[in-house]
Amino acid sequence: VIIYGRNAVTEALRGQRRVRRIWAVKGDWSGAPVTQASPADITARCGSDAHQGVCADVEEYRYANAAELLARSEPFLVALDEVTDPQNLGAVCRTAEVAGATGVVLPERRSAEVTPAVCKASAGAVEHLAIAQVRNLADFLRDAKQAECWVYGADAAARTPYRSPDYRGGVVLVLGAEGKGLRPRVRDACDDLVSLPVRGRIDSLNVSAAAAVLMYEILQQRLDTST
Amino acid sequence: VIIYGRNAVTEALRGQRRVRRIWAVKGDWSGAPVTQASPADITARCGSDAHQGVCADVEEYRYANAAELLARSEPFLVALDEVTDPQNLGAVCRTAEVAGATGVVLPERRSAEVTPAVCKASAGAVEHLAIAQVRNLADFLRDAKQAECWVYGADAAARTPYRSPDYRGGVVLVLGAEGKGLRPRVRDACDDLVSLPVRGRIDSLNVSAAAAVLMYEILQQRLDTST
Repeated sequence: VIIYGRNAVTEALRGQRRVRRIWAVKGDWSGAPVTQASPADITARCGSDAHQGVCADVEEYRYANAAELLARSEPFLVALDEVTDPQNLGAVCRTAEVAGATGVVLPERRSAEVTPAVCKASAGAVEHLAIAQVRNLADFLRDAKQAECWVYGADAAARTPYRSPDYRGGVVLVLGAEGKGLRPRVRDACDDLVSLPVRGRIDSLNVSAAAAVLMYEILQQRLDTST
Repeated sequence: VIIYGRNAVTEALRGQRRVRRIWAVKGDWSGAPVTQASPADITARCGSDAHQGVCADVEEYRYANAAELLARSEPFLVALDEVTDPQNLGAVCRTAEVAGATGVVLPERRSAEVTPAVCKASAGAVEHLAIAQVRNLADFLRDAKQAECWVYGADAAARTPYRSPDYRGGVVLVLGAEGKGLRPRVRDACDDLVSLPVRGRIDSLNVSAAAAVLMYEILQQRLDTST
């Protein structure tokens, strides 16, 4: 796989997968064999002109196992229901990594995967984040409840304010695609639905902005009790 | 100006500036004269292929006056220091509009402006949001303090946790460009600097994610006291 972008390559070098070769306009790279290349060469190699002067050949992305994530002590998971936009998936993964989430769970179908565009959009965060694919998201949420997690879906119409629940212990936060929200079977598998206040004429946040606000509420509650 | 994208055109029609003409692949538009056009025609007209089948000729974007924003009762303003990426500016504007911010303040130079790409990235939120340009951001922050606003800068190294301040009353939240943070003169003009907790190997949030978390903390505090 050819990934591209300065942060994406930097974090791949710090992460788990093998970096076989780097092509770069400038030579300040180490950790793998480096070939000097022109910007046009790099564009041709990675198929994007957003490469910032560097691309690298790396092993396939290794997904985590969803059951193993549920087996962790008090996991904090983020599940995305049919989020297909690579920018949004990358942005959510970056915030999840920074916020210390245990992992991100995606359905196998009708979802963005961890492509090079997602690596770039996540600023390389996917290299340090456990991301699992599941066949059926509603089934996964039921497994999560059996594993004593509480499952909270984000829903603009929900009556529960997002700051009301107790997010300590095992938690799965579920977010839907923009404009569509959660599918009925996914919604039904949630323990509760939570909403963010809105005060503008535009009535919906971008999924990555909503995810950031919710993840930091969860992180903050967990930090407050651990001190 | 030719703006593009479904939300951008929809919100322009609901907003203040005149929409002179719409070019669309499908005919379900009203509020301005509509010309049917092919996707290639629309791409040629707006200069982007991210148009989702519609573009429109609209009046120039009308910026708000920064002094007027400060004259409002207890304004909630977001100031961006040298944020040059249109995606980030658009994303921050969208969240600011949804969170009910009074407005966004940008320096005239070394900052993204409200271009069609920003309209698109904001999902049209810029049409309903007051956005002001100022010659010098540090001077503006001093004016804000004279107008009895409290000025909080986001700084990853700050000792004050972002939830500690009292964000009621007039507030200006200042965010810097990714990777660079706030310039010294802008930082010095802040009453306090606040930080978000980080727990990952990647140590910084995207500016629009950080902005979302901070704006919702501010909104939440203001909602809690208004009830």
